[in-house]
Amino acid sequence: MTQESVQDYYPDQASCCYGCGRLNEHGLRIQSYWDGDDVVCTFTPREYHTSFPGYVYGGLIASLIDCHSIGTAAAVMYRAENRAMDTLPAFRFVTASLKVDFLKPTPIGTPLTVRARAKEIKGRKVIVSAELSANDVVCARGEVVAVQMPETMIKA
Amino acid sequence: MTQESVQDYYPDQASCCYGCGRLNEHGLRIQSYWDGDDVVCTFTPREYHTSFPGYVYGGLIASLIDCHSIGTAAAVMYRAENRAMDTLPAFRFVTASLKVDFLKPTPIGTPLTVRARAKEIKGRKVIVSAELSANDVVCARGEVVAVQMPETMIKA
Repeated sequence: MTQESVQDYYPDQASCCYGCGRLNEHGLRIQSYWDGDDVVCTFTPREYHTSFPGYVYGGLIASLIDCHSIGTAAAVMYRAENRAMDTLPAFRFVTASLKVDFLKPTPIGTPLTVRARAKEIKGRKVIVSAELSANDVVCARGEVVAVQMPETMIKA
Repeated sequence: MTQESVQDYYPDQASCCYGCGRLNEHGLRIQSYWDGDDVVCTFTPREYHTSFPGYVYGGLIASLIDCHSIGTAAAVMYRAENRAMDTLPAFRFVTASLKVDFLKPTPIGTPLTVRARAKEIKGRKVIVSAELSANDVVCARGEVVAVQMPETMIKA
């Protein structure tokens, strides 16, 4: 199956994000895909993304949850309006708040999966909840308040 | 004035953190210093730490707040016990939860300052509040629940 990621549809001027921008060559370039009613991202940390020996850095976990939840908010809004993701006007979100609960140390050296869904849509705001797992064990839970970005934020 | 950072006192096996480990050559290597009753960290994002053009990546902001708050928790506990930071047993903390409110877009190309303090100490837990500023404007606020790490987490 070939499916494009949510981030593949971001316009160029919104694609320099260190976390999920396909045009940021130094970045993580995470990609988010529909999977039933959830949106899912898989990412394998690099060997230097450590916190303590053997475990993944919490800031990376926060970054994955943040960017993937923002992508989820966009995907959910397109689906809510029955629109394809390449149609205009584009839904682009920014993070108003990010909360991560670290439930267990996350082992390094294995792919991580972030599974997210919209908990609530309120006008221009989407509240996304996300779970990050390693080897099918949930290691962190996140909640992101995503808000549609003012067009004035895009300078390019 | 010469002052060592909180992270300078971390033992080697706790110094591989991508955010604040002095031994992680790929990492951010943030450093936290006492400033009166606050603990302060200054960090200049790299040019590729962007979210949208002109603004800093939120995952980096979350990472700075996380690591700096963990360093703050350690510093606060040493001070609460009137102990120098090179005395044993060492206080090493992990993040139980991280909350970041993004108040304004954070401009890139200028040093960021994170100023943190302990809001509450409860047994092995320290709740740290932090503010991240650019050009003296507060752009994000964070709260971290830091918990003393079980010794079993250090494998090395």
